[in-house]
Parts: sequence; structure tokens; C-alpha cells
Amino acid sequence: MTAITPNHSAVVLLSGGLDSVTCLAIAKEAGFVCHAISFRYGQRHQYELERATRLASHHGVASHRIVEIDLAQFGGSALTDVNLVVPKSETVEEIGTAIPITYVPARNTVFLALALAFAEVVGSRDIFIGVNALDYSGYPDCRPEFIAAFQAMANLATRASMEDDRPLSIHTPLIAMTKAEIIARGLSLGVDYSMTLSCYDPGPSGKPCGHCDACLLRQKGFREQGLADPAVTEV
Amino acid sequence: MTAITPNHSAVVLLSGGLDSVTCLAIAKEAGFVCHAISFRYGQRHQYELERATRLASHHGVASHRIVEIDLAQFGGSALTDVNLVVPKSETVEEIGTAIPITYVPARNTVFLALALAFAEVVGSRDIFIGVNALDYSGYPDCRPEFIAAFQAMANLATRASMEDDRPLSIHTPLIAMTKAEIIARGLSLGVDYSMTLSCYDPGPSGKPCGHCDACLLRQKGFREQGLADPAVTEV
Repeated sequence: MTAITPNHSAVVLLSGGLDSVTCLAIAKEAGFVCHAISFRYGQRHQYELERATRLASHHGVASHRIVEIDLAQFGGSALTDVNLVVPKSETVEEIGTAIPITYVPARNTVFLALALAFAEVVGSRDIFIGVNALDYSGYPDCRPEFIAAFQAMANLATRASMEDDRPLSIHTPLIAMTKAEIIARGLSLGVDYSMTLSCYDPGPSGKPCGHCDACLLRQKGFREQGLADPAVTEV
Repeated sequence: MTAITPNHSAVVLLSGGLDSVTCLAIAKEAGFVCHAISFRYGQRHQYELERATRLASHHGVASHRIVEIDLAQFGGSALTDVNLVVPKSETVEEIGTAIPITYVPARNTVFLALALAFAEVVGSRDIFIGVNALDYSGYPDCRPEFIAAFQAMANLATRASMEDDRPLSIHTPLIAMTKAEIIARGLSLGVDYSMTLSCYDPGPSGKPCGHCDACLLRQKGFREQGLADPAVTEV
């Protein structure tokens, strides 16, 4: 059995995008020793994992685990099926309100379940996930009520939930923030957004497409801060 | 997007052991078109997957998916770490009441999360899992309160939870049964237990060790039914 770390550690879900690295910076600032976890799940934007690795190193994590889990085999999402088209728009106002085809079935449930396993082994009772319910794409598993229900379940799921006095907490520091507020918070914590990749459908060199929901929401955030997106200007 | 099946289908977690095949037989008898899901998770008893494949075929499932997910990378369990020893006893009375070293961190949470993804894609709102809270090994993620909490979470997690009128149900038909009762129910449904493997630490040819918790609980069940275990006598 892996030794339990006596100091406060946290598991942070890290995708390589803007939100998750801000979440990591917030967890670090709160004093947690951070263990990052990323997922190679068959996403068309696997390039984000290279960014996640660099960001994990840059932010001094205690460890970084990339878990292989083939969600593409289930199908049903434009993020994992190259035969489906990632929706593109000219402006953020064109993004629909329905759950988009980029939704991956049960993705955050699977990711949080694996983060829970990792947390148990490293002795952490704190998991950080950068979900956001304002400037987001309408995914059901980014909503506060989903997170609350997952936390309740997680507190019954593990050996630690029976033997450790500390409750398991799912932290979502970004959940009520706009993209502009997330960027402002990250900049105040020294996040270098030129290192991040948010695009669902990047070019071979990691160049953002500029027109998927993730690109448009991100551009809107920087625009509202009166800034250019450094990942776009530098690529 | 995979087409939604109009008839009632269910996803059944199938390990190749005694409990899960009984669960499958119960789901079939209830009239569900069954999609089986198994996991190659780094378990030392991977031989069970060969049994799962044969059982899935024998029971006429609509599909059988074996998902690769390396839980061994997290460590912390004798089931996934060959450097740890699977506890052995002479009698079932020697099995301790503490959570044993064969507990795999967050295993059922991960398995049910992946079953939830599979269920969403095949259009099923019913998941069957053969957990059992009587003759079991004290795992936290086999308890009714865990299952209820997972079901509540699952009903907030997916696109289907927002767009499908039918609630998602986690069925645990074995949860309050003794091993002997499970065996009696399975025999009444025509289950051939000689095809199953329950052992945590089988020999290379799939021969049960006869002394791990899973072997002892199973032997007790057959003994209470006045039967010999056909998997032991035939191997």
C-alpha cells in the first residue's frame, strides 16, 4: 500500500487547457501539494497532453499521471470520432444552448472516478476540477448539482471514506466564474496562458482552429479582459 | 451518434464470476436485451475475462465490450500488484471483517462510470451489477448506500439524464442474498457454474486456489446448497 502523505495533498484534473491550469494554480496557492492527472481518452486534440505535461512541470506538481482510457470505443462524440464534425461558428453568440455533439458520454464521471482512485492511493481527500457553469458548452457534467452528487457518492465509495476522518471534497473554484474572471485570476497567480491549448480541433502543430466553442469562449474571455489570447498570437 | 435502441436494453457488468453471471441471467429473465461489459484492469486473475467472453456468448448477449483500464498503475491492491499477497485461509470463518488488501481503490466507481458511458451510447437506462452485501469481502463499494448514491449522481451526469424521461436505474438483484441463495437462483435460471471463475489468485490454467476469500465464500455457498462446486470438480 502506498504510504499516506502526512501533508495536505490534492489531485488536480489537468487537461492542458485554460481552465484546468488556473484550477491548478488556485490549488497550489491554497497550499496543497498537487498531484496532476490527465487522460488520453481518444480525444482528437491529444496535443493538449503535451501542454498538460509542460504545465504540470512548470507549476511544480508532486506527480503527473496520464491515464489511458479509450472512450472513443463507445463513440457518440465529435471529440472522439473523427467522422463527426466539431461545430464551428464565427462568433460566440452563435453557440447553441443544446448539449453539443462535442459532449463525451459520462466523461467527467469517468475522469472523476479515476481521480478518486488516484486520490485514495496518494492519501488525498481533495480533488480539484476546473468545471465552469457560466461560459461553457452546456455539458451536464459541469453543473454544480452533478459535482455535489459525485462528492456525496465518493464519500461512500472508498476505503478512505470508511477509515479516514476527513471528508472527500470536490473543489470547483471556477464553477461560478466567467471566462474573463478565470483569466484574471490565473494572471494574478502567474499562469502563462501561452502554454495552454483549449481548442477541440487543433491543427497538427497545435494551432487552435479559432472557431470551435472552446476557442470562441476563450477569445471572448481575453477580449473582455482587454487582452489578446497569447496562445493564438504566439502559435 | 449511435442509434438509440427502441426496446429495453440493459448494461450488465460481467466479470466471469458466479455473481455477475447470475445477475446477467436475472436481467435476461426480466426481459432486457443485455449488453455485457467487462474490464481488463490489470487484475492478476485476467483469466476471468476468457470466462466472461464464453458466458456472454452462452447467455446470448446483444454485445460484449471488454474495456482496458489500467488500475494497476495506481497500486494499493493485492488484486493488481503481484508483489502483494492475496490473503488465504483454511475456512470461511477466518476471513476478517476489515476491508482486505484485495480491495481495489474506487474500482466499482470506475466500472460503473464506464458502464454509464456504455449505457448512454446504446440507449439503455438500466445497469445491472452483481454486488452483494452479505457473503462478501467487506468492500465499501458493494454497499447499498454506495449504489444509491451512484444512481443519484448518474441521474445528473449524462445527456440522457437531461433528455430522456426514463430515470437511470442501477439494479443490484443480489445485494441482499447469501451466496447459497444466489447459486439457487442461478441454477433455477439455467446458469452453468462450471463455466465461471471466482478465484482472486488462480493458477495458470484457471484452477481456483481454493483458499482466497472469493473461493471460500463460493465453497460455502455450494456447501449450503448441498452441492459441490462444479468449477472445482471439473478443473
